Amino acid sequence: MRDVAVVGAGMTKFGKFLDRSMKDLAGEAVKGALNSAGVDKSKLEVAVVGNATAGLITGQEMIRGQVVLREIGIGGIPIINTENACASSSTAFHLAWLYVASGMYDMALAVGMEKLYHEDKRRSFQAIGAAVDVEWMQQMQAQMKAARGDGDGARGDMPSPEEGAGEKRSMFMDFYAAFARQHMAKYGTTKEQFARVAVKNHFHGSLNPHAQYREVYSLEDVLASPPVAEPLTRLMCSPIGDGAAAVVLCAAEKAKQFTSKPVYVRASTLGSGSDRQPGEPDLTQRIVQQAYEQAGVGPEDLSVIELHDASAPAELVLYEELGLCAPGEGGKLIDSKATYFDGPMPVNTSGGLISKGHPIGATGVAQIYEIFAQLRGEAGDRQVRSPKVGMTENGGGMVKGEAAALSVHIFSV
Amino acid sequence: MRDVAVVGAGMTKFGKFLDRSMKDLAGEAVKGALNSAGVDKSKLEVAVVGNATAGLITGQEMIRGQVVLREIGIGGIPIINTENACASSSTAFHLAWLYVASGMYDMALAVGMEKLYHEDKRRSFQAIGAAVDVEWMQQMQAQMKAARGDGDGARGDMPSPEEGAGEKRSMFMDFYAAFARQHMAKYGTTKEQFARVAVKNHFHGSLNPHAQYREVYSLEDVLASPPVAEPLTRLMCSPIGDGAAAVVLCAAEKAKQFTSKPVYVRASTLGSGSDRQPGEPDLTQRIVQQAYEQAGVGPEDLSVIELHDASAPAELVLYEELGLCAPGEGGKLIDSKATYFDGPMPVNTSGGLISKGHPIGATGVAQIYEIFAQLRGEAGDRQVRSPKVGMTENGGGMVKGEAAALSVHIFSV
Repeated sequence: MRDVAVVGAGMTKFGKFLDRSMKDLAGEAVKGALNSAGVDKSKLEVAVVGNATAGLITGQEMIRGQVVLREIGIGGIPIINTENACASSSTAFHLAWLYVASGMYDMALAVGMEKLYHEDKRRSFQAIGAAVDVEWMQQMQAQMKAARGDGDGARGDMPSPEEGAGEKRSMFMDFYAAFARQHMAKYGTTKEQFARVAVKNHFHGSLNPHAQYREVYSLEDVLASPPVAEPLTRLMCSPIGDGAAAVVLCAAEKAKQFTSKPVYVRASTLGSGSDRQPGEPDLTQRIVQQAYEQAGVGPEDLSVIELHDASAPAELVLYEELGLCAPGEGGKLIDSKATYFDGPMPVNTSGGLISKGHPIGATGVAQIYEIFAQLRGEAGDRQVRSPKVGMTENGGGMVKGEAAALSVHIFSV
Repeated sequence: MRDVAVVGAGMTKFGKFLDRSMKDLAGEAVKGALNSAGVDKSKLEVAVVGNATAGLITGQEMIRGQVVLREIGIGGIPIINTENACASSSTAFHLAWLYVASGMYDMALAVGMEKLYHEDKRRSFQAIGAAVDVEWMQQMQAQMKAARGDGDGARGDMPSPEEGAGEKRSMFMDFYAAFARQHMAKYGTTKEQFARVAVKNHFHGSLNPHAQYREVYSLEDVLASPPVAEPLTRLMCSPIGDGAAAVVLCAAEKAKQFTSKPVYVRASTLGSGSDRQPGEPDLTQRIVQQAYEQAGVGPEDLSVIELHDASAPAELVLYEELGLCAPGEGGKLIDSKATYFDGPMPVNTSGGLISKGHPIGATGVAQIYEIFAQLRGEAGDRQVRSPKVGMTENGGGMVKGEAAALSVHIFSV
């Protein structure tokens, strides 16, 4: 396998764009990536397109990539359509990387795109429900309804209660909430600490022109926002949204033909959940370790990290799983403000899923967009000082309570 | 890139299985492939799963592969979900090949699966309609309705008229019918010649226990079956169906550890349609040529071919595009019976899409199943004599009148 570089990246603003089609969104992102790379579309040799819900939202299944790329004159080349729930486009990036790393092609496009908003909001809700085993979910919902009073689901991968969230929506946030409560019970982590993650990410989002939400919120604002499932409030959860992101990859040995600032892929990993034996590492631990080994770096080497904060507790726990701090110390880490963009361990400088937004199929490549911008010193008001190594961590879906897909990438200048 | 071999293959019978889930169908195919290879599931390092319509038929999007594989205890490894309409699982196979050919993994699983039948038949019809640009299709349908009397769509990628085919269904068969009429006008090809393709494939299907239709039909039967769109009758068109197929790939250098009869992948190609300049080769010509070059063989070297006979005229025209005969000579080739399983150029010995059936996401890997069986001498009553080199050709979807995806593979013993 040979070295691969990212030479261009583009993305749309994330948000609620009922009047924009997926063709329109993906087109903007792809043209942005090509312009950024200074690469003509005719030079692309393969394209991999990640999307999660178009089949259920727009009715466009099967050839989603061809449909959007054809619109901007890209065709003829192999086009791969891939899905992995919220990790759809990190999976697309991984495949694009594989094509180039293998030597099969020199120049590849990876795209992530999603239109999650629909005039009939029930469609958005139904679509999100397909990120789990739908048969199993129906059984779980019946059990969970019986077990709880009935605090309903909200933001997150989910629409807010006001938007009419039904039973299906609450499941993911119920999962995150249960997870958060376990961490509180085991380590004494507080609701305020989770809220501080949200405060940080909303602050970062306020500095990012692509972010869906750009307001700054205080700790009190976050705690006082509508409850979702204890300890989660709405401002601790990622919203639904629309958007697209794209990057151009090429063989590292040719990267300098296109840019003086290539960003090199040091690790590209993907895994899925499994039935573990007691004591075995979990999916995140396994894949993160694999990525560190591939890249030959450790957590102490990371300058900037984008991770999958579908809810604030997820970020806090990931601090521990990525090795940024010891197990149980995630709360202290956010208290120290170390993960602010101007701190020693910047996390989710883009605003993360919570504030930048989470058009699920677009999220993986959008994380890579942020790391690309940071490592090139092009992140504007939220620029980390002289970053050398960046990581993205992107999870997706659930099968019987475990993540269905998890992808970690490490990059360096 | 290193050499890759197929060491095991499994598939279900194709048919209408309202009482069987996709988990059930895919599970049978995967277990069959693992048993055939003598490989324990714990040895798999990556799985790529092709499916086209589950999102629209069952509501299961995003993590289709994880859901079905988890059911039979396969997890932990990278699982890629991919779609490319009727070429979904040849795309899956191509990616599995890439993982092994690149040296990244030694052992990969490729799966194709589809449940196209649904109790509410409208769902099947809507799902098939997603194999094109849905926006464009709506415009075309309006034009076509105005232009024709209104012979309705039928089998094919489509349900039969009796099953309630609506406007959306007829489009693919209208396309094939127009294509057939052009060939008739240009070369004098006759309706009877198209019918002979169907007679052959139904005969082959009668010899294949996995085939959806196992009746033998005469030329008169085919011509007298209900009209779909002139010159197509129903028996010239592939039906909708349910089914799954799976294969195990491994590094060629390790293949003999598992079987004395590995089948080697000599070419793995994938392309998509594009806006061509006048005189440029079409997608099929390009990809077929690429496959011949990769494999270092020509049409004269092929012992057995599975090709995408979504309708009988498609097979006849593909004879010419694959170089089995000169342009315009496809009619003569079928008249000569050369493409029967016991002839000099056997085509669609499985029964093809017309008779074996066409559960769209399963078709690509099912074609490879047939070539695997033939090259190993395990094709029973339809066994070709001492085949050495086999080819699969699998097309999918349409974007503005061109194929959205096309994949050709060449195999040898």
